[in-house]
Amino acid sequence: MSEGTEPTGETRAAVIELLGVLAYGEITAFERLAEDAKMAPTVEDKAALAAMAVAEFQHFTLLRDRIAALGADPARAMDPFIAPLDEFHVHTAPADWLEGLVKAYVGDGIAADFYREVAAHLDEVSRDLIVEVQRDTGHSAFVVDAVRSAIERDPKVAGRLALWGRRLMGEALSQAQRVAAERDVLSTMLIGGGAGPGFDLAEIGRMFNRITEAHQRRMAALGLAS
Amino acid sequence: MSEGTEPTGETRAAVIELLGVLAYGEITAFERLAEDAKMAPTVEDKAALAAMAVAEFQHFTLLRDRIAALGADPARAMDPFIAPLDEFHVHTAPADWLEGLVKAYVGDGIAADFYREVAAHLDEVSRDLIVEVQRDTGHSAFVVDAVRSAIERDPKVAGRLALWGRRLMGEALSQAQRVAAERDVLSTMLIGGGAGPGFDLAEIGRMFNRITEAHQRRMAALGLAS
Repeated sequence: MSEGTEPTGETRAAVIELLGVLAYGEITAFERLAEDAKMAPTVEDKAALAAMAVAEFQHFTLLRDRIAALGADPARAMDPFIAPLDEFHVHTAPADWLEGLVKAYVGDGIAADFYREVAAHLDEVSRDLIVEVQRDTGHSAFVVDAVRSAIERDPKVAGRLALWGRRLMGEALSQAQRVAAERDVLSTMLIGGGAGPGFDLAEIGRMFNRITEAHQRRMAALGLAS
Repeated sequence: MSEGTEPTGETRAAVIELLGVLAYGEITAFERLAEDAKMAPTVEDKAALAAMAVAEFQHFTLLRDRIAALGADPARAMDPFIAPLDEFHVHTAPADWLEGLVKAYVGDGIAADFYREVAAHLDEVSRDLIVEVQRDTGHSAFVVDAVRSAIERDPKVAGRLALWGRRLMGEALSQAQRVAAERDVLSTMLIGGGAGPGFDLAEIGRMFNRITEAHQRRMAALGLAS
């Protein structure tokens, strides 16, 4: 897509779908992080997780406003993604504070990777927005410290949390596959059938490889096998 | 207290207690509003309640930073108020979306009244902060519209919500009394035994009258008997 122009036709529809899934992802992330904050062992920990939740909500408002600026209804744009994203969260409800932290870190990371991968396929304004949204997140040091020191205190939590990380990645991929199968316009843009510069199928494979490798690096940063 | 000076001695201790109760009140308000957002009938409603939650969290960070600027530990300042505030929320868990909205509106209102009443007893910096924190809240139009139109659709919800509003006020007063009985330094400042310009007991009575009257006006704005 050329610089400075607003998307039209099929590309516009695909961009709106993409912004819709990202927006609903952000507001559910807000809800889940706020929910997990209740399990915090101290008020400082609660505040740290709440701050992450607030950042997600601010991303939500940016994405929602961009959908509206493109002349679409944000609620309708988000609607197709309510079921898969809610299901992801139902299947990955953390049992305790540490599982909540790992989910926040791993989930945020997978989302960030996905944002970066798709940004190239967007119009300039939407792309700058995605870059901006990504720049804001940066609470990961808190999570890394908390998880690593929990493992130091009790090394056997590492095994449980490693399994938990694999489950999170598995559920994320399974819901992503469901969305890809159901949303033709979105998939078409990503695999390059649309007007925009899309991926080819081999490139999709490489994208999943990159996301999986980045996930493994994040698990290692937490001191966990992946 | 004279303008431009930082509080010292007993007054400083009382100011820190006051900022502590306000800060813990804000972070629990964040948590409960985020929790209630899950009951929202639409994504727009969810976003409206989430925005209220985010505003509360931003107030929390201002209050926490002011406690730290006074050389105190925010977590220790909040600690005495965890039990009464958590108990308030346990006793007033909304059963549905409308009860959540009424609680958000009424709770925000009572908190705002209390802020305004105590602001006069604070040093200039803390007072300006309280005024600033109050200026930020203003999501009440959304709640008023939502509750009034729910009553229009089904007039019998008005009776249930009116009872709910009375229960909220009763629980708030009962926890406030508990805090007043347990926290000598704070009560002493408010009833005028300390170094600052405090209330006398007759003034305390008038303060509770003003807060009760304001509560009744808010219930009337929602279309509810109080």
